[in-house]
This record gives sequence, C-alpha cells and structure tokens, in this order.
Amino acid sequence: MNKENFQKIINDNWDSHVKRYQKYISQPSVSNTGHGVRDMAHLLVEDFKELGCQEAKLYETAGWPVVYASLDVGAPKTILMYGMYDVQPVDGEIWRSHPFEANIIDDEEYGKIIVGRGARNQKGPLAAVVNAIKTILDAEGTLPVNIKFLVEGEEEMGSRHLPGVVEELLDEINACDCIFFHAFQASATEKKVKQYLGTKGITEIQIKFKGGDWGGPAERHIHAEYAIWVNNPIWELIKAFGTIKDKDDKILIEGFYDDVVGEIEGDAEVFDRLLSVWSAETWKKEYGVRKFKNNMEVRAALENYTFMPELNIDGIIGGYTGEGLKTLLPHDVTVKMDLRTVPNMDVEKTVGQIKAHFEKLGVMDRMEFSYTNAYGYCRTKQSDPAIQAMFAAQEEMGYTVQPWPCLAGSAPLGMFQKYTDIPIVTGGLGHAALPHSPNEFAVVETLKESEMCCILFIYKFAELE
Amino acid sequence: MNKENFQKIINDNWDSHVKRYQKYISQPSVSNTGHGVRDMAHLLVEDFKELGCQEAKLYETAGWPVVYASLDVGAPKTILMYGMYDVQPVDGEIWRSHPFEANIIDDEEYGKIIVGRGARNQKGPLAAVVNAIKTILDAEGTLPVNIKFLVEGEEEMGSRHLPGVVEELLDEINACDCIFFHAFQASATEKKVKQYLGTKGITEIQIKFKGGDWGGPAERHIHAEYAIWVNNPIWELIKAFGTIKDKDDKILIEGFYDDVVGEIEGDAEVFDRLLSVWSAETWKKEYGVRKFKNNMEVRAALENYTFMPELNIDGIIGGYTGEGLKTLLPHDVTVKMDLRTVPNMDVEKTVGQIKAHFEKLGVMDRMEFSYTNAYGYCRTKQSDPAIQAMFAAQEEMGYTVQPWPCLAGSAPLGMFQKYTDIPIVTGGLGHAALPHSPNEFAVVETLKESEMCCILFIYKFAELE
Repeated sequence: MNKENFQKIINDNWDSHVKRYQKYISQPSVSNTGHGVRDMAHLLVEDFKELGCQEAKLYETAGWPVVYASLDVGAPKTILMYGMYDVQPVDGEIWRSHPFEANIIDDEEYGKIIVGRGARNQKGPLAAVVNAIKTILDAEGTLPVNIKFLVEGEEEMGSRHLPGVVEELLDEINACDCIFFHAFQASATEKKVKQYLGTKGITEIQIKFKGGDWGGPAERHIHAEYAIWVNNPIWELIKAFGTIKDKDDKILIEGFYDDVVGEIEGDAEVFDRLLSVWSAETWKKEYGVRKFKNNMEVRAALENYTFMPELNIDGIIGGYTGEGLKTLLPHDVTVKMDLRTVPNMDVEKTVGQIKAHFEKLGVMDRMEFSYTNAYGYCRTKQSDPAIQAMFAAQEEMGYTVQPWPCLAGSAPLGMFQKYTDIPIVTGGLGHAALPHSPNEFAVVETLKESEMCCILFIYKFAELE
Repeated sequence: MNKENFQKIINDNWDSHVKRYQKYISQPSVSNTGHGVRDMAHLLVEDFKELGCQEAKLYETAGWPVVYASLDVGAPKTILMYGMYDVQPVDGEIWRSHPFEANIIDDEEYGKIIVGRGARNQKGPLAAVVNAIKTILDAEGTLPVNIKFLVEGEEEMGSRHLPGVVEELLDEINACDCIFFHAFQASATEKKVKQYLGTKGITEIQIKFKGGDWGGPAERHIHAEYAIWVNNPIWELIKAFGTIKDKDDKILIEGFYDDVVGEIEGDAEVFDRLLSVWSAETWKKEYGVRKFKNNMEVRAALENYTFMPELNIDGIIGGYTGEGLKTLLPHDVTVKMDLRTVPNMDVEKTVGQIKAHFEKLGVMDRMEFSYTNAYGYCRTKQSDPAIQAMFAAQEEMGYTVQPWPCLAGSAPLGMFQKYTDIPIVTGGLGHAALPHSPNEFAVVETLKESEMCCILFIYKFAELE
C-alpha cells in the first residue's frame, strides 16, 4: 500500500468526500419520530451499490429496516462494518445552523466545522468509512479485505430489532474476522485518542411505589395531615431503597457480585498504559467532580470502572415538586435506574436478585417493577490482533492511544458478543462533539485523518497472520 | 333573645345578606400576586365602620395590612373574631363561573350555590359573621358581647406578619374572652358538623442533597457511566433518610418524641363521642385509602392523629424525570417535608434534633437544609365553656357534633396560643367546598343556618358564668 498516494487521492477528491458527509447529515433520519428514516436507508443502499457491493438491501423488521451490504473482493479476510443511520430528535432545540442542512461554518475555536445532527453520532463516522473504502478502490481497483455493512436504524431507540436481524444473518456474521464500529475519538487539543476495548451492559429499571391494598393513598394524593395514620409511598420507597447500598456504596443485594469476572488477561498492562497518558485531575475538572467515591485511588477507580457492576439512580419524582410547599400525602413515587452489567453477569438472574431483595423486605406488593434489557456487555482483549491493528493505525497517524478496558457506558456492540466470538473493534480518529445536543459538529480538517486511519486499519488488519 | 325574630330578620333581609357574600367574594384579594388585596382591606374597614365599630383601621406590616376593628357595647365579655381576607391565586384554573364574579348558579346536587374564590376559604364565613352581628344589631340595637375583628391578608402566604401585629395588640387581645374563627363545617348530606378543638403546628422543611466538595457531580448532571466512581446524591439522600424511620414508621431521630404531652383532660370523652358519630370505613372510602398504617385500630389511629407528631414527605424530585429513560448521574435531589408538631414540642429544638441526626451520619456537608416555622399548635379542652357554647349552638340547630380533639392540619390559630391563654374556638355551620380549587362554592341555603348558629354562639357565650 502507498500511504502517500491514498493521502493524495483524499486531498484531490476532498470536495466530493465532504459532500458525502453533508449528504448523510442533511438527510433527516429521526428514528423516534420516523422523520426521513426510510429515505436515509435507501440512500445508503444506493451508496453501497455505487461502491461496488454485490449485495445491498434492506432487512425489514417490525421497526426500521437494517441496511445490509456485501463487497466481496475474494480477499481471505472480511471486516463487518457495524453502523447506525438513525439520529436523535432535534425538537425544541436551538441550533447555530439548521440541524439538517449540514452547513460548513467557521468556528472560532476549530476553524471549519460541519454542523448537523449526526455529525458525530454516527453519520459522520459512517461517511468516513465509505470515503476510506472508496479511496482504496480508486487507488487500487480492489480492497485488501472483503467488507460487509450492517447499518441499523434504531440505535437511538435501543436497537430493539437488531438481534432478530443478527440471528438471521448469523452465518454471514460468523464468516467475518472482526466487527468494526467507527467513531471520532480524537482529542480536540492533543494528539491523543481514546480506544475502548469493550462496553458494559445496560438494563433500564423503573420502580414505582404507590398506594394500594397494602396501604397508602390508593387513588390520588390526599391531605398531608393523614400521614399520621396512612403510609407514605415516598417514605416506604426510601426505607426499602435505604437497604440496598452500604455507606461505601457497595450493593447489598444478595449474589449481586457473584458472577463478576473482574480482571482479564492483559488488563494490568492496559491500566499501566492508560495511567501513563490519562489524568484523573483533568477529568475531574472537565466533569465538575471534586472527589471520587470513598477516596478511591485512581487505579482502583479505573478498575471499578472496568470490572464492577453498578446500580445507578437516574431520577426520582413523586408528590409535590413545584415552588414552595404544598403539603400532601403522595399517591406514588417513581425511581428510574440503570443497571450496568459486566462479564459474566446474567441480567435475568440479577433482576431476580433485586426482586428477591424487595421480597425479603415484604414490599413487592407496594411497587410496579419494570425493566428493559437494553444492551449486553462486550470485551475484547488488548492482545487481540484486531485491536493491535487499530492501535498501530492510530499510532502511525502520530497519536498516543489511551486504551480503556471498558466503556462504562453501553452500546449495541455489546449485543454481538452474545452471538459470536469474533473480535469487536471500536474507535478511530477525527474530532467531533455534542452528540445528542444542539450544535453537534465535526471538525472538517480532522476528517482527513479519520479516513486515513480507517485505510491504515483495513490494511493492517488484512496483513495480520 | 328571640330566635324566631332573628330568623325572620335574616329571611326578610336575605337579599342584602347574599349581596355581602357576593361583595366579599367578587373583590379579588390574591395575597400571592397582590391582585385587589388593598381594596379588599379598605372594603372591610368601611363595612366594620358601617356596622358601628368605634375603631376600624389597617395595621400596616412589611406585607399586606391586618384589618383591626372594635365594636364596644359595654358588655362584660368580648369575642375576638379572627379572620382572613386573602385568597389563593386562580391562575391557569378553569371555572364554571368567573372566580371573581361570585355568581349564583343552579347546581344539580346542591341547588343554588355561590361560585367564587374564597366562598369557603374564608370570605364566605367572614361575611356570615358580619351578617350575624348586623342581624343582632337590627333586632336589639346592641350586642350581648363586645366584638373585636382581627382579619389578616396573608394567611395564604403563611401569616408571616401576623405575629408582629398580635404582639402590638397583645393587651387588646388579652382583654378578650375567646378567639373565634368561623368556618363552614357542616356535612353536605347529613345533619353533622365537625368541631376541631385545636390544630397541630406545621414547619416546612426543604432538604437538597447536591454534589460538592464531599463528592458527587458538583456542577451539573454528568453521564451515568461515572456512577461507579462518583457518588450519586440521590443514593446518598436515600441512605441518609433510610435511617429516619423504622419499619413501623416510628421516627428514630433522638429525642423527637421527648416533649410530646399526649392525652389531656377530657380527650377520652372526646374520642368516645367522636367514635359514636364518625366512621373510619366511610373516611377510607372517601379518601381512597384501604388500610391504616400498621393495621392501627380506629381509636389508636385517632389518638395518634391527635397526640403524635409526624415528619411527612410531600414531594421529592431529582435527576431525569421525563418519559422513558435518560441515563445520568444527577447533580442534586430535593425533598420537601412538613413537620407536624404537638404540645409541648419546640420547633427549634426538634429541627436541632433532625440536624443532629444528619450530623451523626456525617452528611451535613452534602445538603442544603432550610425550614420555615409556619404555624404553632393550639388545643382547647372540650370542657372549656367557650367550646361548650359552640357545641350547644350547633346542637340547638339540630346538628350532631363530631368533636375532633385536634385538626392534624394546621392553621394560624395555632399562633395565638403562643401569646395568650384565652380559649380558641373554631367551626360553624354552612356547607361549602373546593377550597384552593377551581369552582370553590358555598351552598346558599345553608348560609342562613350558618348565620343563625353564629348568633346562638354569641348569645350562649355571653350567658356563660
């Protein structure tokens, strides 16, 4: 491969490359409302055909279709490009430039930026992959690997119909050698890039305590004076939840930590490498956090972040919550939680343990308990050749890699590891920001690096023994 | 006194009596917004002068003025008529008839009703008192007692400036023989009337747990994935509050119950009398409650209602509370509470005990703690002659009295007992409903009984030895 030649082709064709970013971003595809979703799916099918894919089609689901395409060049290895073509809604948001016009504007800090919904999450990275493949084809007439695309349209809705399509395509997926999810992970200010080696699983739990046959106001809020002889669902919830964590925030639900695997081979080196390039103090400053839980040491914090499950409360609401005080005895109170799982936890088992805890307290009759097993976890070893290929590509681009053993956040990638053992690689260069927020953008100049890094990764992966 | 003559005068002058209700109700006096408040105060001064009061004036405060008037007829006894001339806002409410037009409309259930803000709470009862006094004066040319009026304009704002005026007028108040607060307490369907012998005190407490130097997100919500190494203020609040009550809802704050007096002379008879005319099952049905706390027996429930303090949670809010789930690690969470006090608790002492509890847990640095000592408690013995006079008046009107030793709700009346020992009487006939709600109304026909009952009370009180 001739890196300089690829770079020249990217530069020479930059206008048409930029147009692809603008084409993807300016086509609305809001999965929650349906706005433009199917048009976006068709647009991708056309693009994949134009790229030379022998097969490019929609897999219909009960929701939005999955775009599947295959570009078979007869190479020994195949990369499955996982991606998403849907975006978050923009309703009620105020943008500096229309979210579906993908205008390029001058930013004081970053120079030229593309502003639009999906610039970072994840139409920008998807366009970069397509541009990279197009560049190789323009230069070489072929590719060093076969490519399959699997691009879903429901990521922002929890990928609810992706598992069905994965099951249907399992033979094709298992015939691949790695799954790649491209993302813009480069720092804005330094030549540093984050590389996640996995994700935690996420299960959404909602618990509502409400008055009923057991006691409490069964139909509506009533006057506060009756709190003396009628139970208060908020107090009952607090008393029950007050038994879930100890003062160090350890979860006291029986068996909760039983299946936690903890450190796997290579993690120690990953932590060493990460600690040499990552600053907890900088992180704290950025996030407005002054102290870690239990005065954790930085390495212990990273280990917990990687290995340990968590039961987080995202929100709570019940009774009177307006200005001042309106006294009342509330009918109900709702807690929203996210359960983050790690290998080898089983969500059904863990949810069963949580329910058993409430049963022991005798409060199951006071609550409505619902949950959604949104995404599973996945972890790929740092030593995996596919990961090493990505590390090498980024380093060749002059970047220092911050390897994170695990993204404590969750992603649909976690789903694949339930079905297949092939390595999962995520990451990439390019700088973009404000996903799910107004003024989401990508820095135009960094997209060249992003495409080049994709090309390097493809070649390095192809050359693996 | 000639009851039939009073009744005849009421009937003969009914149009002008009704006009007074309409005059008071149609004059806006929303203390929270200021709408019409001062005009209402002046209207009362004019009315009291017209009634023959030698003195009728405004006591200015830092908020809305208190209307004070005195009608001295040289009688041996004096009744202080406490009242309020302000009302709750009507913003955003939809009414069947304009809240400040005081229209009389036909209701399917009740016949003719006056609809308007204040019809029940408390301009209706105030107009009834004035009509009653006017009736006696028309019939007899004088009164059997002297009357003083003390009518405040900030009851709906917590009577915040009333104590200052009470202190200023303390000699005049102490020269009175009882304080009377007229209310429409008759049942809509039966010849029954509630008679409260006191009120609990109320202190509003607001506690906010928020991230800061101790830990947690100190500036804003951050991504939920960091819950593994950053404390969650909602969990911290739940853990702290989880230590406040035991499973039977007993408050575990040290010293909380120390100063509770419990039963006073005559309470046992009050409970006997109340239990003979009050049905817990009917109450439960009306309020949508299926079970009392801890399977309390009815008498035990009434005793707790009367004697025991409570720490109620009115509302809680923090983090993400919209539809579905947005995962985040919240910056803060707020709990709104009402503390109900009973004789001889001291609010400052109790608040100190609550704070000491949190200090022992080591969480004071995680919270903002604020409170407002809104109203004190008051209790008058059933055997007090002033109470007996009210009982007798209501019974003479054909009503069965339901004596409640204590309103677990709170009222500014509680404030007086801090300053003076004279008996406090509240209650009266007349049926009205929906205070603080749209379509507040009073049933026109029942207002005659209400006025007549006031007249009887005044005479019975005058005749006491």
